[in-house]
Amino acid sequence: MKAVWLENQALSFRRDVAEPALAAGEALVCVRLAGICGTDIEMSRGYYPFSGIPGHEFVGEVVAAENAEWIGQRVVSEINIPCRRCALCLRGYRSHCERRLVIGLRGRPGVFAEFVALPLANLHRVPASVADEAAVFTEPLAAALQIQEQVALRPSERVLVIGAGRLGQLVAQTLALTGCELTVAARHPHARELLEKRGVRVIEVSQIPERQMDVVVEASGSPQGFALARQAVRPRGTLVLKSTYAGEVQAHFSSLVVDEITVIGSRCGPFAPALRLLENRQVDPLPLIAARYPLEEALPAFEQAAQAGVLKVLLQP
Amino acid sequence: MKAVWLENQALSFRRDVAEPALAAGEALVCVRLAGICGTDIEMSRGYYPFSGIPGHEFVGEVVAAENAEWIGQRVVSEINIPCRRCALCLRGYRSHCERRLVIGLRGRPGVFAEFVALPLANLHRVPASVADEAAVFTEPLAAALQIQEQVALRPSERVLVIGAGRLGQLVAQTLALTGCELTVAARHPHARELLEKRGVRVIEVSQIPERQMDVVVEASGSPQGFALARQAVRPRGTLVLKSTYAGEVQAHFSSLVVDEITVIGSRCGPFAPALRLLENRQVDPLPLIAARYPLEEALPAFEQAAQAGVLKVLLQP
Repeated sequence: MKAVWLENQALSFRRDVAEPALAAGEALVCVRLAGICGTDIEMSRGYYPFSGIPGHEFVGEVVAAENAEWIGQRVVSEINIPCRRCALCLRGYRSHCERRLVIGLRGRPGVFAEFVALPLANLHRVPASVADEAAVFTEPLAAALQIQEQVALRPSERVLVIGAGRLGQLVAQTLALTGCELTVAARHPHARELLEKRGVRVIEVSQIPERQMDVVVEASGSPQGFALARQAVRPRGTLVLKSTYAGEVQAHFSSLVVDEITVIGSRCGPFAPALRLLENRQVDPLPLIAARYPLEEALPAFEQAAQAGVLKVLLQP
Repeated sequence: MKAVWLENQALSFRRDVAEPALAAGEALVCVRLAGICGTDIEMSRGYYPFSGIPGHEFVGEVVAAENAEWIGQRVVSEINIPCRRCALCLRGYRSHCERRLVIGLRGRPGVFAEFVALPLANLHRVPASVADEAAVFTEPLAAALQIQEQVALRPSERVLVIGAGRLGQLVAQTLALTGCELTVAARHPHARELLEKRGVRVIEVSQIPERQMDVVVEASGSPQGFALARQAVRPRGTLVLKSTYAGEVQAHFSSLVVDEITVIGSRCGPFAPALRLLENRQVDPLPLIAARYPLEEALPAFEQAAQAGVLKVLLQP
């Protein structure tokens, strides 16, 4: 089958990749549309070692499964494949299973391919009214919603999102639903425009206030984001980290003690509410689509996705 | 009056310091006993600029006040003097008031003196059954209890305290009251012995486990503590920072995102429960007293307090 291949941090497009074999409890899914995520780009730069088919954001159709009820269903898939037996799994933290495989990221082929084998336990049916172009955003939208899973956001709070890229846009759209006093710090004109069209207040990075915000979400995708977020949050405020990037950050930890700041790392989120928000049109990811490439043109697609200010680039097998 | 004086990061003992004048709503308190805190030592090393009388842990007796009911009362005092009008004060975060003065730390003379002027609003009466030697620990004990104010600690959780110094000991004693599975990582034999006598499990720093602990309290007072705490906490666990020290810490923030760690800075705490625990003998700070010096000998007292492994050194005016 056709697939994108990552090896030694080099991407290629291949026509001769073996079709996945199904294990018990798995479905063969034909990929209809996939999205390039910041993590895919970071990975291709050596953020961490992975060889094989990358990609984890997608919508597809089940073409084979033990249980015939699944066949023909349009689905999205949670990306973590946990052992379901360890202490973390039993506690409900399946996305933190230390033995987990992660689709397109750790020990498991991803979705930048014609077909992908996935555990049925990971699949969610996509409501008929949700187009492929929206469903392909389910995974990052779930990641955005993880903030609300972890932090009790009060409608009266002042919330700042730093970064209006792929994830920042979805974070901003879901935070706006809480009724909070939302501000987004954005660099790129197109990103600003998309938010302003939705009535979200946008400021320049240089306008980020000092010690004013109840909650700050760091979604800039860069190590510089933390210092900006730290500057903006009020004493006793909450700083949510959504960015992953290579390298370390230097920070004045004593000031976190003095100001009693809470810092919360936030990663993967719940799929069911993401699909509900898409079905109810409470979130609209379609304007985030910057371009759509056939799978054969994955390399130029990655190139475009890696450019500053470019939002979602889709791949169609 | 006699007082300790800090200027240009140099401590001295003086006999000619003017007695404090009382403003409206203040009491004149005769200091009976005061404690040297890690922050006092850090401050004398240039942690941040302060000139004047240092010291903020004490027990004293009211000798003058507008309201005669206070005179003769044995008291302890909260250290933050907030404006009570700003947004943070009105929200209840008085210890975070941006205009706050702090006794012996910011804009306000401290307690290493014969007398100190204090707002009546800051004072708490000490129960008759609590000796001066115990009451002098009210402030650090309150700081220890701030952890439980901020984090819902479950009795079933595995909790690790890193550091068994002045604050770590009190933290361990109060955490033990929750019924949690408590472990303390300690370096110094005397600190270990005190905890073991109370039935607390103690380990060497080299024995700190990896990714096992539900909650880790970093009370080591050193920049190295964060890496140890980070190593010990499980995915989705909570890391409470109690240490302040000069300098920055380098950390891999992306791993906080991947493991969804919550980091909580924790500073000053509630006095009323601290006094209750002392009154009910649920916490016993007396074994922490390493030495007691007359105020005249403050300099050797500071020298002893600064030595590794030395717990509480008291000053008696």
